[in-house]
Amino acid sequence: MTESGAPLSPADKTLLEEVLAGKTRAVARMMSRAEAGGEEDRRLLAELYRHTGRAHMVGLTGVPGSGKSTLAGAIARACRRKGLTIGIVAVDPSSPYSGGAILGDRIRMTGLTGDDGVFIRSMATGGVLGGLARASQDMMDILDAAGFDVVLVETVGVGQDEVDIMRAAHTVIVLSAPGLGDDIQAIKAGVLEIADIHAVSKGDRADAGQTAAQLKSMLNLNRTAKGNSTWRVPVLVTSATTGDGIEQLITVIGEHKDHLEQSGEMAERRKQILKFRIVKNMEDIISTRVVSEHPGMLTTMIGRVLDRKTDPHGAALDLLDALAKD
Amino acid sequence: MTESGAPLSPADKTLLEEVLAGKTRAVARMMSRAEAGGEEDRRLLAELYRHTGRAHMVGLTGVPGSGKSTLAGAIARACRRKGLTIGIVAVDPSSPYSGGAILGDRIRMTGLTGDDGVFIRSMATGGVLGGLARASQDMMDILDAAGFDVVLVETVGVGQDEVDIMRAAHTVIVLSAPGLGDDIQAIKAGVLEIADIHAVSKGDRADAGQTAAQLKSMLNLNRTAKGNSTWRVPVLVTSATTGDGIEQLITVIGEHKDHLEQSGEMAERRKQILKFRIVKNMEDIISTRVVSEHPGMLTTMIGRVLDRKTDPHGAALDLLDALAKD
Repeated sequence: MTESGAPLSPADKTLLEEVLAGKTRAVARMMSRAEAGGEEDRRLLAELYRHTGRAHMVGLTGVPGSGKSTLAGAIARACRRKGLTIGIVAVDPSSPYSGGAILGDRIRMTGLTGDDGVFIRSMATGGVLGGLARASQDMMDILDAAGFDVVLVETVGVGQDEVDIMRAAHTVIVLSAPGLGDDIQAIKAGVLEIADIHAVSKGDRADAGQTAAQLKSMLNLNRTAKGNSTWRVPVLVTSATTGDGIEQLITVIGEHKDHLEQSGEMAERRKQILKFRIVKNMEDIISTRVVSEHPGMLTTMIGRVLDRKTDPHGAALDLLDALAKD
Repeated sequence: MTESGAPLSPADKTLLEEVLAGKTRAVARMMSRAEAGGEEDRRLLAELYRHTGRAHMVGLTGVPGSGKSTLAGAIARACRRKGLTIGIVAVDPSSPYSGGAILGDRIRMTGLTGDDGVFIRSMATGGVLGGLARASQDMMDILDAAGFDVVLVETVGVGQDEVDIMRAAHTVIVLSAPGLGDDIQAIKAGVLEIADIHAVSKGDRADAGQTAAQLKSMLNLNRTAKGNSTWRVPVLVTSATTGDGIEQLITVIGEHKDHLEQSGEMAERRKQILKFRIVKNMEDIISTRVVSEHPGMLTTMIGRVLDRKTDPHGAALDLLDALAKD
């Protein structure tokens, strides 16, 4: 009821039709609308959402230096050879720079310039309140509605934000590289357990096999990491340089999708993804309401906490009460 | 009003008194209460909050491999030599392991075992909804109320979560190391700009001076990064091995505090910290309400989104309306 009540403007209706027809420029414009996030923009996205649910959402994460972007390019080319279209959302939470230049480089890297069957969007943030996980999911919805067969979301795997971004994927690939220092390997500890597929990059290096063997023995220790799933997490050695292992990776991504659908796990995963998305949206709406729409109330409450008349948690409860009555 | 209404139980009153007297065991118990986060626990923290506001909150962040924990240990020893007490909150967002073993190692590392003037708490998470920034701030409050002169919060500097954790500090130190790969250096781009003080670790290495020079030239390009502050961000070369630069770092940390107080920037910074804390608390409260207290409402809404009767954002708005009426 909330937003779908009012009809779209004729211009927005046309934009939506063009996105659904897979027109690249319309997709890019719709993404800018999603980033703007105004009331009309949200209504447009709500209409678009009705047309989602078809794409295979794939997440790719790995430590810095693991060759993630290179592998994403190789996956894109392999998808195209199989006749699959692919949309990529590349999220760089630590970069304060926005997309233009990086984006151009990324498209050139794939060697697929001018191919409408591949679309790349890069996202960066310089410390906004809330929302990188939510924003990347909007981008994935748009690519899904535009008819891309595979939607790949890619981010550096080092913190909670990145794990959150991966939560939108049906199939998560965690990329490891041979020969990185212990410090670097250690930071991925929290990320390893979210893998449906492990890939080792730089397979042309002599020590890649050793990295794969380490991952396999670790997986044997952690059999139950993914709850009740009967999926056996595979470890694949890939090389973006020689192309070895890339076709196999595409095949395994497809097998994981088949597994999810045949086992009934896909339905459960879709529910978990939505649970997370809805809660994150609630958090974003609340912070926007108080920061942008009621800054005076917030300022008053900051003063009360500064005077030690309440504490930050008590102030938050009082503000939520006040917003509820608004 | 919200929480401070009901009086504390006699046991909690005693616990609070012991924390305020700086008793180590009481501090540890209070921290566990903060992590539990029940209604009584929050009331206790609200009472404790009245006694905060005295400590100098210092943040320390750096890329993996930069020698952050080693520097934290050196800072702790230098503080103790100056007669200052120090509490450390070490946050590892990517670790799924909780504190025990790591914590013991950390205390041994400082060489200050058995000294009541130093207290270390480590925090880890394996993917909880919300709250690492909020939780670490509760820990900092407790150390503040317990009378520690300096409260140091330390985390790996790689993502938005870590930047969020640093937002609670009055003085932020960003640590860089010589000789790390470009990939690793790149991920800290978003973190560099939050520095009040830059430190270069491993100053005994020949290339440490080069890293410091790079940071200095970058700072000259970004003079206005910290708004209107008249503070000139210094670059210090340190060595935890030889001890070079550590005393100077402690001196500069003190100078930054003096600068904040004399320029009036401290008042502004305290407001910004509280703004962020209150909003994060609101987000946490909302997600707890819907996930833990109204799971049925959430499940119903997930079903509506799955049926494409609404979208995740619309579902979030409807749930917020329903919670407001509850």
